[in-house]
Amino acid sequence: MSNLWKVKADNFINEKESIMRTGNMFQISNGYMGYRGTLDEFGSEQLVGITLAGIFDQVGDAWREPINAPNGAYTKLVVDGISVSALKTEIISHTQQISLSNALFERDTLFAVNNKQVQVKSKRFLSAETPNLMVVEYSFSTNVDAEISVNTGIDYNVWDLNGPHLVDIEANKSNNMLTVIAKTHELGKKLAVAELIDYAEGDEQHLISNNLNLRLISIKAKAGNTYTFYKYVAVVKQGDPFKGSKKNAAIELVSVALQKGFSSNFEAHNAQWAKKWEKCDVKIEGDDEAQLALRYSIFQLLMVAPVKGSANSIPARALSGQVYKGAIFWDTEMFMFPFFVYTYPEVAIELLKYRINTLDGARRKAASEGIGYRGAFYAWESQETGDDACTYFNIGDPHTGRDLRTHFRDKQIHISGDVAVAMWEYFKLTTDDSLLRNGGAEVILECARFYYSYAYYKKDKDRYELLDVIGPDEYHERVNNNIFTNKIASETFRVALDAVNYLKENFASDLDALLAKIEIANEIPLFQEAFEKLYLPQPDKETGVIEQFDAYYKLEDATVEDVKSRVIHPNEYLGAGQGVAVQTQVIKQADAIMMLNLFKEHYSHEVKKANWEFYEPRTEHGSSLSACAYALVAADIGKSEWAYKYFLKTAKLDLEAKYKVYVGTIFMGGSHPAANGGAWMATIFGFAGVKAYSNKVSINPKLYDKWKSLSFNLSYKGDNFAIKITPDETTVQSLGSNIASHKFVLGEKEFVCDPGRKIETKY
Amino acid sequence: MSNLWKVKADNFINEKESIMRTGNMFQISNGYMGYRGTLDEFGSEQLVGITLAGIFDQVGDAWREPINAPNGAYTKLVVDGISVSALKTEIISHTQQISLSNALFERDTLFAVNNKQVQVKSKRFLSAETPNLMVVEYSFSTNVDAEISVNTGIDYNVWDLNGPHLVDIEANKSNNMLTVIAKTHELGKKLAVAELIDYAEGDEQHLISNNLNLRLISIKAKAGNTYTFYKYVAVVKQGDPFKGSKKNAAIELVSVALQKGFSSNFEAHNAQWAKKWEKCDVKIEGDDEAQLALRYSIFQLLMVAPVKGSANSIPARALSGQVYKGAIFWDTEMFMFPFFVYTYPEVAIELLKYRINTLDGARRKAASEGIGYRGAFYAWESQETGDDACTYFNIGDPHTGRDLRTHFRDKQIHISGDVAVAMWEYFKLTTDDSLLRNGGAEVILECARFYYSYAYYKKDKDRYELLDVIGPDEYHERVNNNIFTNKIASETFRVALDAVNYLKENFASDLDALLAKIEIANEIPLFQEAFEKLYLPQPDKETGVIEQFDAYYKLEDATVEDVKSRVIHPNEYLGAGQGVAVQTQVIKQADAIMMLNLFKEHYSHEVKKANWEFYEPRTEHGSSLSACAYALVAADIGKSEWAYKYFLKTAKLDLEAKYKVYVGTIFMGGSHPAANGGAWMATIFGFAGVKAYSNKVSINPKLYDKWKSLSFNLSYKGDNFAIKITPDETTVQSLGSNIASHKFVLGEKEFVCDPGRKIETKY
Repeated sequence: MSNLWKVKADNFINEKESIMRTGNMFQISNGYMGYRGTLDEFGSEQLVGITLAGIFDQVGDAWREPINAPNGAYTKLVVDGISVSALKTEIISHTQQISLSNALFERDTLFAVNNKQVQVKSKRFLSAETPNLMVVEYSFSTNVDAEISVNTGIDYNVWDLNGPHLVDIEANKSNNMLTVIAKTHELGKKLAVAELIDYAEGDEQHLISNNLNLRLISIKAKAGNTYTFYKYVAVVKQGDPFKGSKKNAAIELVSVALQKGFSSNFEAHNAQWAKKWEKCDVKIEGDDEAQLALRYSIFQLLMVAPVKGSANSIPARALSGQVYKGAIFWDTEMFMFPFFVYTYPEVAIELLKYRINTLDGARRKAASEGIGYRGAFYAWESQETGDDACTYFNIGDPHTGRDLRTHFRDKQIHISGDVAVAMWEYFKLTTDDSLLRNGGAEVILECARFYYSYAYYKKDKDRYELLDVIGPDEYHERVNNNIFTNKIASETFRVALDAVNYLKENFASDLDALLAKIEIANEIPLFQEAFEKLYLPQPDKETGVIEQFDAYYKLEDATVEDVKSRVIHPNEYLGAGQGVAVQTQVIKQADAIMMLNLFKEHYSHEVKKANWEFYEPRTEHGSSLSACAYALVAADIGKSEWAYKYFLKTAKLDLEAKYKVYVGTIFMGGSHPAANGGAWMATIFGFAGVKAYSNKVSINPKLYDKWKSLSFNLSYKGDNFAIKITPDETTVQSLGSNIASHKFVLGEKEFVCDPGRKIETKY
Repeated sequence: MSNLWKVKADNFINEKESIMRTGNMFQISNGYMGYRGTLDEFGSEQLVGITLAGIFDQVGDAWREPINAPNGAYTKLVVDGISVSALKTEIISHTQQISLSNALFERDTLFAVNNKQVQVKSKRFLSAETPNLMVVEYSFSTNVDAEISVNTGIDYNVWDLNGPHLVDIEANKSNNMLTVIAKTHELGKKLAVAELIDYAEGDEQHLISNNLNLRLISIKAKAGNTYTFYKYVAVVKQGDPFKGSKKNAAIELVSVALQKGFSSNFEAHNAQWAKKWEKCDVKIEGDDEAQLALRYSIFQLLMVAPVKGSANSIPARALSGQVYKGAIFWDTEMFMFPFFVYTYPEVAIELLKYRINTLDGARRKAASEGIGYRGAFYAWESQETGDDACTYFNIGDPHTGRDLRTHFRDKQIHISGDVAVAMWEYFKLTTDDSLLRNGGAEVILECARFYYSYAYYKKDKDRYELLDVIGPDEYHERVNNNIFTNKIASETFRVALDAVNYLKENFASDLDALLAKIEIANEIPLFQEAFEKLYLPQPDKETGVIEQFDAYYKLEDATVEDVKSRVIHPNEYLGAGQGVAVQTQVIKQADAIMMLNLFKEHYSHEVKKANWEFYEPRTEHGSSLSACAYALVAADIGKSEWAYKYFLKTAKLDLEAKYKVYVGTIFMGGSHPAANGGAWMATIFGFAGVKAYSNKVSINPKLYDKWKSLSFNLSYKGDNFAIKITPDETTVQSLGSNIASHKFVLGEKEFVCDPGRKIETKY
């Protein structure tokens, strides 16, 4: 079964697309930085990217994006004066792999050089214990004696999509320590990379050339001997919790790491990974394909979970590069947060702290969009300040070469509700009110205030409406009363009222201080009224279908194929004002269906079924967020094969990496952590039928036929549970370390599960 | 001065564009039908068009448009076996002209054929007394004896933009009478054309060939003799007020006409025209250019005034062809109606009866657009039923060949207010309440109901708003709180309340019946509230400028030249979703300025000046309606040279016919009656400073420097006045036939003007 913990490639395809895809698939990350799955000898042309979390830069009018660090893991071999690279040297064999258990990257390449065989092996990990640290074990051997130079050091030819972001770069070698320091272009934020190396044999020279700060280590290699080098690399950026200069901090980090040695660093790293998997693994018996895809998905999420205390969140393309500006979208709260809050709340809280820290940016956005609103309108593409990195002209029109005005930024108002509802969900499922009391309630109230400020009252219908919005289905801009948006706004009013009530009962003086601070006391009754009177499009009495927005039914009922056949230019976007889907019922992604998943307990089986069957054939799935919503609702309504199909589509997205990576000349590659989260949700919320409420955990399994069992852990209100579902029974084991008894509803039956006890229900 | 009553061309340019323009410039009309200014021997290729008022047809999915009748005025000469036509025969000299005094078309062509000179003269008029009747006098002479055949009859090769509209065509000759009967394609409406001819000499044969129902009249012409033919042609369509078949009615009409003879028919026609000019002429001393242009403009309006009792209105391209679907736009109420209501109320009432007759169409539109509204939402492009002929996809995109979704139809809601306000204006300025009592008040109330149904209340601002509209500036679709729209809606609520009050005081039972019929009594208080609380964007306290719509100022402040320079394709529309003007402050036409003209008494001089100066440089004048609004407000604020420049631009539009006639392959030619009305408004409302209210007529002259005097007539509350303005004085002569005394305010001075008296003020 070890193959279910590894992803491996058995050859090397020397082709741009393939190198990009491999770079994605074999990326590693530790939440502080990512390192794409590229080979030691590769450079910026091969999209080597060490993308850092939480630091951004803008050059001119180009997109603002995260910065990539200089590559301290760079190593290239020169054999008998011939430089060796997978890009130009004959390859006899090549494998590369990552271990899902510990995010270890390994490569093993047998080159033919000058009639000699040279084997290069390396291992690389980004320490899960020491976030700034990267460790590499690099070794080689030859079958014939050879003159070898190991050129290793820091490559500061940095790959940037919209750079160069680093300026004032200084490379240095001092006391055997290689360093590169730099500043960011826009804000002058400091960055340092230090590298130390440990090896047994060789004569070292130093060379700075072509933006490479290099050690040239000469070895007269003996046939059959293996020569091994241990590289310790630290990246330190401004804002990291170190005293003194970034450079000194980096030097200190690598010095300590070298002193500890490879094994010790690796063990500490592995111990952290063991903890992660203990909390988060999901075991599927009877379906290796699903098992590997799901585990790979979970692995992606675990890798990019923000460093504790960083209050970073997870960008839409994680740390796989600069695509989508390294920005945080609704993806995080709606597709990744559930995984963490159900299994790993310590990470979930970081994601939400990020939103608390960027509340002022959301306030600024509310005040400045359109005619100006009150409250918090979170950024559609959020970076470190919470100001919106999303441009108003977001899509290139291949017909005219112009940028099209889109309304993602100014009209996709559901983002604030996504944040507010997640904030409350964290409290509900953890009972940890620290977040609520330290900014969370403020976020929720400011989001409610925003919706009230955005809403109009239709007097002759005695209801509030939300006009001129974009729902998750981005092909239809500027619509009225989008069901997803109205529902999430309605829930925002609800949680705002709940939060006020909770604080009133438990922390009255906190509440008073908060209400006074943001001068909102008079508005609470308005939130109550808006909650009662906000229009929620209802299921049609005959069909059960909820119209996605006002007059959606009047659009042309074209098929997805029809719409696609109207495309003239391959890079044509289907939405954005006059795209070919805009005037049709074809939608980009789950919208009503996403809502029915989020609030599944508010709608009947019939309504969910009717809507799934209505919207599924109308969905183009132009977003990677779409499939999992269809999987989730399909599982809920018993469409098991459909659920499985959409689950696999979601779960295999990054593992297969078949998505489009270049749209025209624009690089769009990168990983899809929201789909990864979607795979977990499809499994746990979908097939296992889990949903946690403030007073119970409900488990209604819809196990896929092929699966013999499904085992996973849940965290609920600070306690932990091991759950196993088979076709015949469901068991819930409350861990012995648990504190409290909790209500579980297994199928129809209610149980109280005491600490250390196991409950089970048979079918 | 006779040249100020004629428009003449001294040559013939055998070129498609020129033939089209000449066809426009020399068109004649009598409100029942138009006849383009083409030559007797021309056919459909030369855009001969006899466009009928009030009858429409659609073929397949093509645009629905008015029908053109077969041409009973067709005559072609054959000299010595050689057919003679300006298109291919050598022309020695050619003139053609129309008389503005009586809409008489004349041509005089000297041809060289077979080494002989042949002179062809013809006169043509569409009877102003008998709307169905067309009369032609056709004569020829030769300088050498010749064998002549006069081929004359009915050409039923009909020019259609989106036809063929006529089916089941039958041509016949019986008892010397030529007839062509047909039906319309869509609705099977019947049409008949009959022709009789009167001539002294010749042998006649009959031929039906190539869709020509022809008399071939052979004459051995003697040198120097003139041979004259009088043709009487009647067109009768279904719905005309005749008993029996259309064919018989047409036959009867031409029989009677022939019996009366040319002179008698012509005199009756001229008598009608004399009456028109007596009411409507405007004399400008000292500026022949302005005089001719203005008179030509007035002439255009008088020609196309609907036939009494027809309840037709005037299409945006009058009866000059099928362009713009022969549809009635806001042009009529806002740009043509003022001329008629101030000078010729018998015509004004027809225009409004048309709106009363199409109220049900407006109700259907309100109920079916978007999510459905209540009340009356008048068609953007209105035909005989009031259902909207405007398509949702109205503009071709030259980049993709697709039709772009525009919102002219569904969002240009100011149309209902334009109608309602005109309806009330008619009552106010005539005191004729027959219209109000017979559908007018119902129209007004249904328009107010529509706006109430469309409006949203913003609770936290305690105001109603009108969201998601297009104002007159069509480059900016789907905007909120457009000043023109909100103001006209506000005035609609006002006139609805005024109308209710008037009826309550004078015709209480009529009112009760109306309120009961349309079940609207409960809504009247809502109209009062909406009138009080509808948001009207106010002039900025610092600058005086009124923001055209919410967040207009946030758009790019690009110049008109900037925006035009971004155009890639010559046929690219600047608006429609993603056009190059959309995200800029460049506007298509007067919008705030149009509002400031309509409600000039509500705003200060400073505000009007500030807005004119702000918006004028931002206006692209992509509509022929734009210039006159700038002329009007320029005159109002004392920008005399600007007023004159824009006045001339408006007044000369059709006279010079320099506009674009082919957009790509699409024919867009035709006359511009709204600009014609604009020229009159610029003169009378602008330079003469006239405005009539319910309790007074105010005259504040801003006479253009060059003008020695300006003389015109006004109709006010059923009485008539001759007004003369010179740089030194203004005199108002109340006609002796007048009934009542009326208040006039000349400059600052108030006068009561009794019947038969003259008042004057000197400066």
